[in-house]
Amino acid sequence: MARLLRVDMTRREVKFTDVPEKYALLGGRALTSRIVADEVPPTCDPLGRFNKLVFAPGLLSGTNAPSSGRLSVGGKSPLTGGIKEANAGGITSQKLANLGIKAIVIEGKPAGEGWFLLKITPAGAELLDAGDLAGKGTYEVTAICRERYGSKVGVITIGPAGEMLLAAAGVTNNDPDGNSSRYAGRGGLGAVMGARRLKAIVVDSPKTFDAPVKDPEKFKAAAKKFTAILRKHPVTGEGLPNFGTSVLINVINEAGALPTRNFSAGRFARAQAVSGEKLAETAVARGGKATHACHPGCVMRCSNVYPLPDGKVCAPIEYESDWALGPNLEIGDLDVVGRLNYICNDVGLDTIETGVTLGVLMEAGVIPFGDGEAAIKALEEVGRGTYLGRIIGSGAAVAGKVFGVTRVPAVKGQGLPAYDPRACKGIGVTYATSPMGADHTSGYAVATNILKVGGYVDPLKPDGQVDLSRNLQIATAALDSTGLCLFVAFAVLDDPEGLPAIVEMINAQYGTQLTLDDVTELGKQILRTEREFNRQAGFTKEHDRLPEFFALEELPPHNTVFDIKGEELDQVYNF
Amino acid sequence: MARLLRVDMTRREVKFTDVPEKYALLGGRALTSRIVADEVPPTCDPLGRFNKLVFAPGLLSGTNAPSSGRLSVGGKSPLTGGIKEANAGGITSQKLANLGIKAIVIEGKPAGEGWFLLKITPAGAELLDAGDLAGKGTYEVTAICRERYGSKVGVITIGPAGEMLLAAAGVTNNDPDGNSSRYAGRGGLGAVMGARRLKAIVVDSPKTFDAPVKDPEKFKAAAKKFTAILRKHPVTGEGLPNFGTSVLINVINEAGALPTRNFSAGRFARAQAVSGEKLAETAVARGGKATHACHPGCVMRCSNVYPLPDGKVCAPIEYESDWALGPNLEIGDLDVVGRLNYICNDVGLDTIETGVTLGVLMEAGVIPFGDGEAAIKALEEVGRGTYLGRIIGSGAAVAGKVFGVTRVPAVKGQGLPAYDPRACKGIGVTYATSPMGADHTSGYAVATNILKVGGYVDPLKPDGQVDLSRNLQIATAALDSTGLCLFVAFAVLDDPEGLPAIVEMINAQYGTQLTLDDVTELGKQILRTEREFNRQAGFTKEHDRLPEFFALEELPPHNTVFDIKGEELDQVYNF
Repeated sequence: MARLLRVDMTRREVKFTDVPEKYALLGGRALTSRIVADEVPPTCDPLGRFNKLVFAPGLLSGTNAPSSGRLSVGGKSPLTGGIKEANAGGITSQKLANLGIKAIVIEGKPAGEGWFLLKITPAGAELLDAGDLAGKGTYEVTAICRERYGSKVGVITIGPAGEMLLAAAGVTNNDPDGNSSRYAGRGGLGAVMGARRLKAIVVDSPKTFDAPVKDPEKFKAAAKKFTAILRKHPVTGEGLPNFGTSVLINVINEAGALPTRNFSAGRFARAQAVSGEKLAETAVARGGKATHACHPGCVMRCSNVYPLPDGKVCAPIEYESDWALGPNLEIGDLDVVGRLNYICNDVGLDTIETGVTLGVLMEAGVIPFGDGEAAIKALEEVGRGTYLGRIIGSGAAVAGKVFGVTRVPAVKGQGLPAYDPRACKGIGVTYATSPMGADHTSGYAVATNILKVGGYVDPLKPDGQVDLSRNLQIATAALDSTGLCLFVAFAVLDDPEGLPAIVEMINAQYGTQLTLDDVTELGKQILRTEREFNRQAGFTKEHDRLPEFFALEELPPHNTVFDIKGEELDQVYNF
Repeated sequence: MARLLRVDMTRREVKFTDVPEKYALLGGRALTSRIVADEVPPTCDPLGRFNKLVFAPGLLSGTNAPSSGRLSVGGKSPLTGGIKEANAGGITSQKLANLGIKAIVIEGKPAGEGWFLLKITPAGAELLDAGDLAGKGTYEVTAICRERYGSKVGVITIGPAGEMLLAAAGVTNNDPDGNSSRYAGRGGLGAVMGARRLKAIVVDSPKTFDAPVKDPEKFKAAAKKFTAILRKHPVTGEGLPNFGTSVLINVINEAGALPTRNFSAGRFARAQAVSGEKLAETAVARGGKATHACHPGCVMRCSNVYPLPDGKVCAPIEYESDWALGPNLEIGDLDVVGRLNYICNDVGLDTIETGVTLGVLMEAGVIPFGDGEAAIKALEEVGRGTYLGRIIGSGAAVAGKVFGVTRVPAVKGQGLPAYDPRACKGIGVTYATSPMGADHTSGYAVATNILKVGGYVDPLKPDGQVDLSRNLQIATAALDSTGLCLFVAFAVLDDPEGLPAIVEMINAQYGTQLTLDDVTELGKQILRTEREFNRQAGFTKEHDRLPEFFALEELPPHNTVFDIKGEELDQVYNF
């Protein structure tokens, strides 16, 4: 019987409760956003006592549905001031699902300066003192917890950035090898966890794939079908398994949409040096791995294990991190990118927000563009809590204010990811209108604009982008509720059997009769819930806009501007 | 014939244009807000090319109406993101009015790194190179300009804070003695001026009181009547002329509404040491002045000249500055307050925002509460552009984000002034709902809550505060359009002949037949204009709220919380 685990940090009490009927068929983002909307006052201070932090495995997590180990984390974001869901791979989602935990809801704030650890085992849950873990990086925390509680445990933790309540702080958990690098990075949820003085959650479960399934035979058949669909598609069956996500560096660079030098150009002269191909070659040559699965049962295995020259291992360097800490800063050196990425992981920062922030600092002249060593030196200050370190950890919008920079690529306070909206206009619509702030994962129009998956919409023209983004945002919201990795969407968009197979798995697991329309309706409902929360938090259509400079400055090489009008952007929510 | 002076910084062109009919009877705030609403896109980047900076003398400025020398400065605020009008005394308003200049509109941004000076004389206006003034403090800039262009000129300038585009940077101009300390401080308009790379405006006019008046005899009679009204009232005729604004320290402390230790208590044990009485005594003993007029023709003379131990002179230390840099920081030493105030004036920062920001830094533990020398040292970093300096210059809300502080006293990004809203609830309504962000001057309910001027509304109870604030906000908007100092309101609120005398002066000057109702309607129209700008900039009623902690934490000694509900606050705009 699935339960909610409620943790009251003010009273330091944990309790399991029944799952309300209305939450029974929600998981992942659908559940975190619903609980946040039901329980968090939209105007509350994200770091104050009324915010909550919610963890929820997806509907299919903990089964042997392929690539279904995403963990959703939700709350009110200190970065955007709106609702936030960020999800990550890693091993804890499956473990929580196997423990029958539908969601963990962390609320309140303890008095005093103590730090706590939430330990969850098949026997129950308890809050332990974690004073000895305070101030430690995520790698060390994870290593200590695996040493202390067993090498198979999943460890959800924050780094010093989250403890310092920095708005770019993420929440991480570990992969099967103990690498603490699977981040629900975006939106500062690490600071929300830090504000509750919860340093870590240790999840100990002997099971991975044994979440209850009502009709195992039917489930097995659907899962098998879905696996075959993933293996058959060129992106999920070949591109990602062979080169990982960073294969996109060359692709997006070729498309002229790789944001370079803080969104000043769409091509980077040294893109090849930080490409996925180069990454795979170097990783393997150093005894690392070109591909790697972030959780058991993933068939795409799009991660990697990149040994750094100093003996540390950055696992993985994902495309977005590679871009944010590479081309965006005019840095064309994978070892520098890897070192920056490692520091972000350890101190507990979102790599995208951090890269965008460093780009803003370079725009301001604080650090020279292309100077990797200066960037590393600056980033190392975050852990020391210096003034510069705190500015970096506060994200791009705050850094832009502190340094009087007008070229700040952020929407709703969140930095833009790795696709320039002037050369990939569909993703620009998603950046502008997603309730999450600038977020590529919430409606990945790059697929159709550039990868020609799910059809083709010319990335340089405004036509069709609003419809494209709307459909993807709806589908993605639903997908984010299943625990399936977003990357299955490549196959699902192209294969008419893809979505039915997902619905079959859900129906087999829960004994339901959901239709494809029900899934679409779920996606719409999630977006409506999130948007309503934001409306009540004070957001209007004026917040659904890109920064001014994208409409004013032409982006080489295509020399296009973002020319989708506000009234058109407002049509995204016309459903 | 009155003209507009338009300055295009992009083309470096100045031109005089006729005043459109619709602007003919607007002045001060009515005119700056109208021009901003007409010409500035509400969603534009405040530091970008589309914002404008507007200077406008009041309707009565440049005549011998008593205390009518306020200069309004307007634009879109980089601090609040909304419309902003800040006004100041000093001598330039009268000079501009005597040159027949209804408003100066600064627009565009020059290419390159140059700095410019706008020189205005009876012969015309021109943009001069000001590279030699860049980086200099306001005192030095003003001294150089008076040396270069004559000791009678008015100098409007920004300090290094404005050049650095810091959101707490103000615009200053000088008093008759050349003290560059009359600040249109709030809302970061200094950064808007800096973004246009305009370092200073020099206004050279031989005349002070000769603005054209249609019916001089009628005007003279009304002005005489109004002067008598001011001289008769205990606040404008005795309190302010004898002790200046800082007389409020003891009064507000006694009322339990003096925000102490970053709004943690309403009484400060060492209030007496920074009181107006102490200030007057010390100033006089050192050869300074207990009272002083910021512009010719002021009958209240509420300023002062406070010699500092190091030989510098802080003229004046106003109540709000005294509080912000004193009790708010638990600093009970006038010399420390004076030194902090002097640095703010010189580097070009709003004293209120700076004091509130230092309070937030003390809350965060960056500087110890009460440590004046540490505060001075930190503040000195602003001029050097260090990381800490830039954080301080960015205002309280940004500092709160950087340091993860939840007790940040700010509304719409602007720091709260010198009256705790829990012990003076009427001003709390104004803080929450003013289009300007937290601003005491836009509806000074302290008058009726604590000084018992214009009746009495119990400051500790929620009853009647919304009506009080609404009426004051409407009246103030109208008053801010006349060039009259807000302090005339003390007399006007108590004397039924006050407002008619103002209307008589306006009618005599412009040959109009305005009624009292027309003036009220003007006030309403200004508020509607400002609020509509903010609505189009993305503001909603959710932004018309005080920070969470004012409803949660009881304020000693009265142990009250701010308990006026959101729905009630929304009734302020019910007109």
